[in-house]
Amino acid sequence: MTARASRGRRPGAPDTRAEVLAAARASFGELGFRGTTIRSVAAAAGVDPALVHHYFGTKDDLFVAALEIPVDPREVMAPVVADGPDGAGERLLRALLGVWDDPAIQPGLLALARSLLGDDSGPMVRDAFIPVVVGPVLAQIVADRPEDRIPLVASQIIGLVVARYVVALPAMAQMPAEDLVARMGPVLQHYLTGDLA
Amino acid sequence: MTARASRGRRPGAPDTRAEVLAAARASFGELGFRGTTIRSVAAAAGVDPALVHHYFGTKDDLFVAALEIPVDPREVMAPVVADGPDGAGERLLRALLGVWDDPAIQPGLLALARSLLGDDSGPMVRDAFIPVVVGPVLAQIVADRPEDRIPLVASQIIGLVVARYVVALPAMAQMPAEDLVARMGPVLQHYLTGDLA
Repeated sequence: MTARASRGRRPGAPDTRAEVLAAARASFGELGFRGTTIRSVAAAAGVDPALVHHYFGTKDDLFVAALEIPVDPREVMAPVVADGPDGAGERLLRALLGVWDDPAIQPGLLALARSLLGDDSGPMVRDAFIPVVVGPVLAQIVADRPEDRIPLVASQIIGLVVARYVVALPAMAQMPAEDLVARMGPVLQHYLTGDLA
Repeated sequence: MTARASRGRRPGAPDTRAEVLAAARASFGELGFRGTTIRSVAAAAGVDPALVHHYFGTKDDLFVAALEIPVDPREVMAPVVADGPDGAGERLLRALLGVWDDPAIQPGLLALARSLLGDDSGPMVRDAFIPVVVGPVLAQIVADRPEDRIPLVASQIIGLVVARYVVALPAMAQMPAEDLVARMGPVLQHYLTGDLA
């Protein structure tokens, strides 16, 4: 009788999904995105890899699920890129502010942001959050050189999130969303499609 | 015989300065900038307020000293504003990158940035770092409405610092300083003097 059986769990029982997710979070945190595989997560959780695929899909999907945010950033950004590069800066801001300003969603995003800004989670942002979650979507609308443009976009979005929500500078926290869209939209548009040096 | 005398210290002895600084850091951290006075710091350190003034100058100066950074941001920014609003965006970036890219200075700045981004030090940035250290200097060159423009400038600078140094996105960390100046300079200029909505 194995340890698992002795604890009375069945594959597919409600806590199995949570256990896979906990194993995934531990692995992404310790080994990074590249060092984590569906197979190793399955082994750590004591389940078959097929069950991990069944619950969570691809490794990208598993990573997004492990972030435990109430929205999938890829879905939020889909309409931003669907209409092409024109006006994408403003649409990106509107989509971002729409989820961040939602009181039902903000606490989860804030917890994620604080964790990503923590001392040890630089690799999570560097190796996975931007390249896996954000980069491929934004790459569809940049004019060229995504390797320069996407990090510049990221720098302004990170600064917006930190200034408006994490540190909460009063003027940034209280600025009406549409004012922010009008003032910062041209900046994101510059980074996405403008004449970069 | 007081506790201080029993420990054999004299006012003005080398450790007195360090003790005042430690008391100041504790007070700024616990009570915030507004809740801290030269008098209360002096009392906590067991010295005369005149000695605190003698060592550190004003409360603003004491705050900058308590940040324990190897440069005074007000001195770094003085030449940025001395030449007026034209080109201030690029000069601000060049000055910022000059100190942050200096390997002798960067570790101290990075420690400060991590501490300011930490869970409990939002008030330090909100109530003191930007209004006391950065705001008054930048206010000299903004076109109008400093209450909107300075937080927008801060949002991009915070994002730059986090992306290039704290999280260290490879493309941002490796971008040559002059490329960054050329690409991000127009953004800071837009926030400082551009046509804001």
